[in-house]
Amino acid sequence: MEEKLSSKAGAKPIRCRAAVSRKPGEPLLIEEIIVAPPMPREARIRIICTSLCYSDITFWRMKEFPGVFPRILGHEAIGVVESVGEDVTELIEGDIVIPTFMPDCRECMDCKSEKSNLCSNFPFKVSPWMPRYESSRFKDLNGETLYHFLSVSSFSEYTVVDVAYLTKIDPGFPPNRACLLSCGVSTGVGAAWKTANVEAGSTVAIFGLGSIGLAVAEGARLCGATRIIGVDVNPDKFEIGKKFGVTDFVSAVNNGGKPVSQVITEMTGGGADYCFECVGQAALVQEAYACCRKGWGKTIVLGVDKPGSQVALPSNAILQSGKILIGSLFGGLKPKSDIPVLLKRYTNKELHLDEFVTHEVGFEDINKAFDLLIEGQCLRCVIWMNKNE
Amino acid sequence: MEEKLSSKAGAKPIRCRAAVSRKPGEPLLIEEIIVAPPMPREARIRIICTSLCYSDITFWRMKEFPGVFPRILGHEAIGVVESVGEDVTELIEGDIVIPTFMPDCRECMDCKSEKSNLCSNFPFKVSPWMPRYESSRFKDLNGETLYHFLSVSSFSEYTVVDVAYLTKIDPGFPPNRACLLSCGVSTGVGAAWKTANVEAGSTVAIFGLGSIGLAVAEGARLCGATRIIGVDVNPDKFEIGKKFGVTDFVSAVNNGGKPVSQVITEMTGGGADYCFECVGQAALVQEAYACCRKGWGKTIVLGVDKPGSQVALPSNAILQSGKILIGSLFGGLKPKSDIPVLLKRYTNKELHLDEFVTHEVGFEDINKAFDLLIEGQCLRCVIWMNKNE
Repeated sequence: MEEKLSSKAGAKPIRCRAAVSRKPGEPLLIEEIIVAPPMPREARIRIICTSLCYSDITFWRMKEFPGVFPRILGHEAIGVVESVGEDVTELIEGDIVIPTFMPDCRECMDCKSEKSNLCSNFPFKVSPWMPRYESSRFKDLNGETLYHFLSVSSFSEYTVVDVAYLTKIDPGFPPNRACLLSCGVSTGVGAAWKTANVEAGSTVAIFGLGSIGLAVAEGARLCGATRIIGVDVNPDKFEIGKKFGVTDFVSAVNNGGKPVSQVITEMTGGGADYCFECVGQAALVQEAYACCRKGWGKTIVLGVDKPGSQVALPSNAILQSGKILIGSLFGGLKPKSDIPVLLKRYTNKELHLDEFVTHEVGFEDINKAFDLLIEGQCLRCVIWMNKNE
Repeated sequence: MEEKLSSKAGAKPIRCRAAVSRKPGEPLLIEEIIVAPPMPREARIRIICTSLCYSDITFWRMKEFPGVFPRILGHEAIGVVESVGEDVTELIEGDIVIPTFMPDCRECMDCKSEKSNLCSNFPFKVSPWMPRYESSRFKDLNGETLYHFLSVSSFSEYTVVDVAYLTKIDPGFPPNRACLLSCGVSTGVGAAWKTANVEAGSTVAIFGLGSIGLAVAEGARLCGATRIIGVDVNPDKFEIGKKFGVTDFVSAVNNGGKPVSQVITEMTGGGADYCFECVGQAALVQEAYACCRKGWGKTIVLGVDKPGSQVALPSNAILQSGKILIGSLFGGLKPKSDIPVLLKRYTNKELHLDEFVTHEVGFEDINKAFDLLIEGQCLRCVIWMNKNE
């Protein structure tokens, strides 16, 4: 057993560059770090490119646990297997992989079931460690441990990822498109496709037109929704949204005193068939629930709210409305089976991915990616580890 | 149009006995009243028998609107069509009918849809009036208007019911069994069958083992659930529950300080596949949600809580659990199509109805039925309008 818990005989640490987050909200520092060889059921990955997701910013700013420092953030990426640990049979050196924050162990009751994407062997949590051994594979040149993030930590030229969190894909996809399926786009498209199972001809309302909300629109469009209403504080989002199928826009703030739920109920003659909350505010979940259609309306929660936040719904509305409330993590997708399906739909020119990539930078400019996303100018900024790739 | 809004030429009022609720919480008075002829799309019904449901007691006690007086309560019944108003083509004199508080107009988008049982032409509300014309068909011998209840008002030898609220059934069913499908048993069985769509082999937890909760157990048993956990303050309910398929019992109050949700999570190894709240307490909805199984668990709300009550759920639990919250009115059933299915299952000796009827009284003893239900000694007390029927 002792042997099992060590890396392969002869496997060596790698010295490479990483963007280390040392203090909450302060610019990442590009440093040389040491990446240990993979342990059993892990693989060491050379990151090709990574894109910035808003959750990276949330945890970069977070001053208290589960915000920890120094940490290697990043969880939306694509890479190549550099080496594998013991007991890894499903991957070999050179395989192209998409790491995900969502595991897919393929062994537990959930991963084997059609009904759930919430692995029981590796329950979702934001841990500073590798998921299987609760330890780190990173240290800096002074020997200090660097923490992991969401089982991925892609802001490094090399990282170590558990095989439960790695989806092997066919080679040949543009990395700066495929990497989007590692988190944000999959989450939004999946929420419409898998969690909500949007019916053709239906009406959809999306609260928040960031990348996730736009990916929901894209998913709803692919499912054949005929009316896709975007709700945002920023009316400029309507023009962007149109690229992804948004047909109508409702201001989140400026409706002459009417609540958004009333506006949507009126414009849809009774409510939207599906309402997606993509912001992470309990009050918006309540608004979404209020304007989803009685009898069959579904409210799908994708937004990450502050710890301790609660959604309050009137008891009589729950009883009498027949509405469904459900949350969606990673869009209800199982990474290993569903990411390849989405890639195929991209190849078939059905799924839009190109339109999400508004910016691309080199690794040394990673802090610029943070600025762009914070300023709201960008949907996805791809960060290339090596400009010549 | 004027003509349309009157009763048929030659149709006459009927003088008959009714149990009138004149003051909140005071015994009903058996009085002679006048029942007007049916208006267009209404039918006048001779009630054969009626059973007492807890909602009758709730509204009998209710001092403020929608509690109104004097009123003819009762909404779980079976009867015979005495006469029909203009434009009624689907019923004739002598038809056996089950009136329901739930309409099924067969014309609106919801009634035509497979997905909803919430009629849009007659949205659910507790009104003092007939649903189509907002007027009463009852008055006492002094000419005072008596209010209707839930579009049924079955505590009268004759009542008038809108055709949207009447299900014609084949003759020959025992009235004191068939009447149970008018509200309580249908609500519980339907919640398991239609709203939850309980899978064979699954685990079910039921909060509250009154008639509705026991009917949920019965529905879950019919769907093939293998484990049915009853939760109640009264441990005697376990013995009763066994008749309807309850396999395990958890005290709602006495678990050595452990919350019920923790007990159920532990005994099921992660939560029940379906949790039904049949009491009407927001705190119990929260407990039910907490112990339904991540990934696919459904919490179904059947209980009627006080006006203004709110269910509060942690935002992160909604997002990360993949659990579904849904309410169920009349068990998600469409009366006109689903009551006949349940009657057939009763005839086939699949659906238990006999076991729900613990007491039977004559009409003049209707207040005894109230006492029995309040004292908790009874599941259903059938009240016969005419002992010789």
